[in-house]
Amino acid sequence: MTTRVPVAVEPTRDEHVVAAVEEAGGELVGLDQARVLVWLGDPDGFPALPDAVEWVALKTAGIEGFVNAGVLDDKRTWTNASGFYAENVAEHALALLLTGLRQIHTSIRDHWDKEPIDTAVRTLRGATVAIVGAGGIGVSLTPRLKAGGARVLAVNRSGRPVEGSDETLPSSRMDEVWRRTDHVVLAAPSTPETHHLINAESLAALPAHCWIVNVARGPLVDQHALYWALRGGEIAGAALDVTDPEPPAADDPLWSLPNCIITPHIANPSSGLTRELAPWVAENLRRFVAGAELISTVSADRDY
Amino acid sequence: MTTRVPVAVEPTRDEHVVAAVEEAGGELVGLDQARVLVWLGDPDGFPALPDAVEWVALKTAGIEGFVNAGVLDDKRTWTNASGFYAENVAEHALALLLTGLRQIHTSIRDHWDKEPIDTAVRTLRGATVAIVGAGGIGVSLTPRLKAGGARVLAVNRSGRPVEGSDETLPSSRMDEVWRRTDHVVLAAPSTPETHHLINAESLAALPAHCWIVNVARGPLVDQHALYWALRGGEIAGAALDVTDPEPPAADDPLWSLPNCIITPHIANPSSGLTRELAPWVAENLRRFVAGAELISTVSADRDY
Repeated sequence: MTTRVPVAVEPTRDEHVVAAVEEAGGELVGLDQARVLVWLGDPDGFPALPDAVEWVALKTAGIEGFVNAGVLDDKRTWTNASGFYAENVAEHALALLLTGLRQIHTSIRDHWDKEPIDTAVRTLRGATVAIVGAGGIGVSLTPRLKAGGARVLAVNRSGRPVEGSDETLPSSRMDEVWRRTDHVVLAAPSTPETHHLINAESLAALPAHCWIVNVARGPLVDQHALYWALRGGEIAGAALDVTDPEPPAADDPLWSLPNCIITPHIANPSSGLTRELAPWVAENLRRFVAGAELISTVSADRDY
Repeated sequence: MTTRVPVAVEPTRDEHVVAAVEEAGGELVGLDQARVLVWLGDPDGFPALPDAVEWVALKTAGIEGFVNAGVLDDKRTWTNASGFYAENVAEHALALLLTGLRQIHTSIRDHWDKEPIDTAVRTLRGATVAIVGAGGIGVSLTPRLKAGGARVLAVNRSGRPVEGSDETLPSSRMDEVWRRTDHVVLAAPSTPETHHLINAESLAALPAHCWIVNVARGPLVDQHALYWALRGGEIAGAALDVTDPEPPAADDPLWSLPNCIITPHIANPSSGLTRELAPWVAENLRRFVAGAELISTVSADRDY
């Protein structure tokens, strides 16, 4: 008879995650008895960890909050949820891009003001879409864009070809990306390197018909520069699921722009979050039981 | 030396269509000298046709306006633009469905009201989408839906399998379609058979999470019944690019519903219309020159 791995699921024993843990060979225990902690909460309230905890699974893709709070240590393995929500986020990115291109936001606001709406409609077909930070989300988004007739220009650090894309460029060639793309989807993590990647200079290099979609993190965009570019028609529009800060202030001028769409950080809706996460917790737990390498490990000092 | 076919392009000599005509072996002439008329106008103003005109190419997909105006006769061949705009309309249908599922319309209206928006977000992944009237638009829409992880239930008159769909049902089994699908895209022509296909009964049979997208014709939907179904939460939402009448009256209660998205008949935007149409005019003209069968012929008495 195999011994089951003692796993703590905190701060709430979510039904989907608990079922996945039990199915994958885990036994639900309190943190004081656990070898594994699945932490479904925020950095606030993260518990002091007993030394016996060998692996902590975090629920989010972006873990800068945990890093900044000093939660991560080097005494055990840490995993994030990068890639686990990729399909969901990719779907939201496509939805935002199409809403903008097809002028659905304008239709909602201006009702049947047909002539100006009609002439502003653009198509994805034949357009080049740059996916900046083409990891899991990029791989999920690419076939959706290709099915819509777009060309995909992936951008990652190495420039190693991204599955399914038409071309991959390294991030060292960003200047070229801005000049060569029609639209931009931001899917990169928030790091010093990606801070204000969209700024006055990149906005000026992008074409006037460009839509920028951000499903990554707010700090990738210099919102002040974005505001003026949107107001001046330097680009066609922006669709943001993330902002800096979140939410934007009630009097943030971005709210008033007709060519700016903002959704409240729902690309990965929390309503479905644990359901999405559960199979990945199970997969990693099976690997843990087997002594295999875990998926999506992170460390505090990694420049991810 | 081949004689060029005399073609009239009226009422405006659109540059894209004229270029396509000349490239395909046509010579631009006045209507009194023409064997072919490419009519880029509405039924109003349609000219008296000289007997020498053997073929008239109409610019729209739905031709009920021409039929009702008594324009079509049986003295020559008539073609419509069915299928020529399929990619464009399919893109708009997907955009409308995703806008609804991802709650982008609600985000635009309610700003960062995160909790209720977040919990209302749904995904295309794993959902069944019925395409009712699966012709050219359906064939174009199917790979877009499949790339998004949906299952496609095509519905046509014959039930003959539609390319790429997971299952095709004949329209005689509509009752079953309403019960088995998650979402509905209407892409059928407006005929007596499709009049008020969406009515109190079909709305009651559809699931509460259902989104209905109409990129076909307004009369397919009983808007009174739709209003009450949307208001009562019988279905989740409707996204209409076409209505009956068009536009809806300014005080039409549909405008006030938070779960109804209306775009002003722009699935096939007139801004790009002649550009989309041009290659098809060229293809049909090449066929005409070669004495081959034309694509997309129609007749007044056809129950299309």
